This record gives sequence, structure tokens and C-alpha cells, in this order.
Amino acid sequence: MSSPVAILGGTGQLGFGLALRLGRAGVPIVLGSRDAGRAREAAERAAGLVPEGTFSGDENAAAAAAAERFVVLAVPFASQAPTLKGLGEALTEGQILIDATVPLGPAVGGKPTHLLQPWHGSAAQQAQALVPKGVRVVSGLHTLAASLLEDLDHDLDQDTLICGDRKADKEPVAELLGRIEGLRVLDAGRLEQSRIVEGLTPLLIGLNIRYKTHAGLRITGLA
Amino acid sequence: MSSPVAILGGTGQLGFGLALRLGRAGVPIVLGSRDAGRAREAAERAAGLVPEGTFSGDENAAAAAAAERFVVLAVPFASQAPTLKGLGEALTEGQILIDATVPLGPAVGGKPTHLLQPWHGSAAQQAQALVPKGVRVVSGLHTLAASLLEDLDHDLDQDTLICGDRKADKEPVAELLGRIEGLRVLDAGRLEQSRIVEGLTPLLIGLNIRYKTHAGLRITGLA
Repeated sequence: MSSPVAILGGTGQLGFGLALRLGRAGVPIVLGSRDAGRAREAAERAAGLVPEGTFSGDENAAAAAAAERFVVLAVPFASQAPTLKGLGEALTEGQILIDATVPLGPAVGGKPTHLLQPWHGSAAQQAQALVPKGVRVVSGLHTLAASLLEDLDHDLDQDTLICGDRKADKEPVAELLGRIEGLRVLDAGRLEQSRIVEGLTPLLIGLNIRYKTHAGLRITGLA
Repeated sequence: MSSPVAILGGTGQLGFGLALRLGRAGVPIVLGSRDAGRAREAAERAAGLVPEGTFSGDENAAAAAAAERFVVLAVPFASQAPTLKGLGEALTEGQILIDATVPLGPAVGGKPTHLLQPWHGSAAQQAQALVPKGVRVVSGLHTLAASLLEDLDHDLDQDTLICGDRKADKEPVAELLGRIEGLRVLDAGRLEQSRIVEGLTPLLIGLNIRYKTHAGLRITGLA
């Protein structure tokens, strides 16, 4: 894989942790941020932590344009629409947007254990409504604790559920994310099912508070 | 524990499987049904499968009245309100209703992978609105595959998430359900969080269809 995967919101904890994990798995990464300078700093920091990885940094639109196929969106809900609208012509037909957005309460001053309901049904469906025609959205990564992703010594040992309307989109996403050690990728159905999957995040946040941990998800009964 | 636990909807697969598992753990069970004769038949069948257990059967209201503390409601969503309204004076202050209802699409001719939104926010909150004052609702058991409960040779090895507004209600429920071998009970927060937890069922149903299994849930990162 010579073309990099873009991670928009790559200076945030989730995006940065994901960059480290994918970079360690041999995936070249371009970190995107609103500020190109901060993106480059994060790329240098990532290279220091994962010397075998390939990291660069750029402004979000340039990062998305540099990715041939996969663009990950890892930003807070309040930044999802502005970020996508700000990409202009950067996203092009055939690209897959991997959307990790969760519509959590704090976007409107609420609690992190509360889930907001976007007009389209879920953050993922809102993303699909905002990207250019021919760009497909697959949602996933909602239940990964950002702090555990960053801690490279920590064995993830959990599942992530992905949603999307076409198998042809979900299969390469599962292949990509499946490169992350200890992460199993499961197909949770159509993109609209993301309204349920996104709810797992506030659920886990509540468990984290009550049990003082970084909870993750495992589906039992699978081979 | 001399007073039995009532399981309304005890002739259905979930209620019956739960009766077997609790009965095997030494909890006396009274199975409730709209039809007392069918409830008694189910109790005889349960006694045949779990000879060490104590099972009886009765009409739903009589079963609920026979329980000192715990009444489990394990019926399809379309039967939840009629069942609760039909209990008359059977539920009394101090009892805890353990509600396993999931508002699945088929209640209105829809898909089992779809979740309906009850007016009160969740089936559990609807139950709380329908029970007499002083009866507390704790929701749980949503993610247990009924067919695996019935299969007593199957090691459950999974979690169930419970929701309720008072710790004083959730603790005894956790103690009761925790007697089931292989089942870990986790506190998922206030009763309103049940709107998320109930969504896990259609999610698992979708995984069951796609992966041809009986999926369950495990939260990682807990001691």
C-alpha cells in the first residue's frame, strides 16, 4: 500500500492513536488537521513513537486529497459537518470515508452518557448526506478508547462494529482496520444501523465512569 | 430464598430459558402466562429438565402476586403494556419489575433489526410509567439469546447490562441474575439509558443473521 490513509482530526486523541496503530501495521498515514502546522507536529510525534511507520501531516483537505481510497473522520460531533463542508473538492468518487463520529451530548452542552439524534438518524448518515456523490461512508471505530489506542503496550483485544450500505465498501475497510493488532472487525449491517452502534459509545463512557476503567466491546458466540 | 421469583411470559422462549437457569441456581420460580394451564404445563416441563429446581405455574397476575420481591417481564413489545395493565392490583409497593422488553420492529410488522422508539424513550421507561407507584423497574436481560438459555449444556460466558434509577434496586437484581452461571451483570446507568441498551438486541439479531450464530455481549477492560 503506497497511497496513504488520511486521518482527519488526526491531532485529536482518537485520530492520533489510530494513526499510531495503523502506522505500526505498515499503513502509511497522513494526519489531517485544521492547522497544517499542528498536523505536521503530530506526524513527527507519531514517527518518534512508531519509528517503523510512515507519517506526514497536512491541512484536512490536502490530507484527504492525498489519500487514494481511505479517509478517516475522527472529530467531535460538533466538528463533523464543518469539517466535511470544508473539504471542498478534496473528496472524490471512489473514496471511502470511515466515519467515527458519535453524536454525544457535550456537542450541545449535555452529558457524555447521552446520545443526540441527528436529523438523518445517525452521525454516519449525516456524513453520507454531506459527502460528494460517489463517496461512500462506512462507520466504525466508535467503541475504541482513545487512551488505549495511544498506549501501544496495551493489547486491544476487542471488536469494532462497522456499518455501511455495500459489502464492497465494508470488506476493504474490514481488511484495513483488521490490520490493527488485537482488533476484530464485525459487519453490523447497513449504514442506518449506525444509529444503534453510535449509542455504544455513551454506554461505554457510563461504564468507564462507574467502573473506573476503559471499557471496550466483544461480541461472544463468533468463531 | 423461599419466596419465588415470578416470570411473566414464562411460556415464551426467553422466560422459560431464564426459569431453567434461575431454577438450577436454586431460585424458586413461578411461571406466569395469560393461560394458567399453559403456565402449569411449562412448570412441569421445567421440573423435568431441572429436577433440582422448584417450579410452579399460574396466570400472570397470580404469579406476580406470589412473588415477594422480583417479577420478571419477558414478553414481546406488543404484549408489554397489555400484560402490565392486566395485572390489576397484583404488583405492590416494594416489588421490583425486571423488564426484558425490547421494542423491536416486528411489533408493528417491521424488521427484527429495527428498534422502535416508545413515547417514553424506551420499553423500560414505558414499563415504569405503567406500574403502580412504589414498584421500581430495572431493565436487563436484553442480550441473552433465548435458545442458548434453554440449552443448559451451553456455557453462557457473557454479560448483561442492567439499567435503573436506584442503586438499592439494581444491587439485589445484580445479585439475583448473577446467580446464573456464566452471566456477569453490569450496571449500565439510569433507567433512561435503557433506550441504548435495548438497541443491542436488534444489533445482535443482525449479527446472528450475518454470522449465523447466537451472538452475545462482553464488555472488555473490567476486572
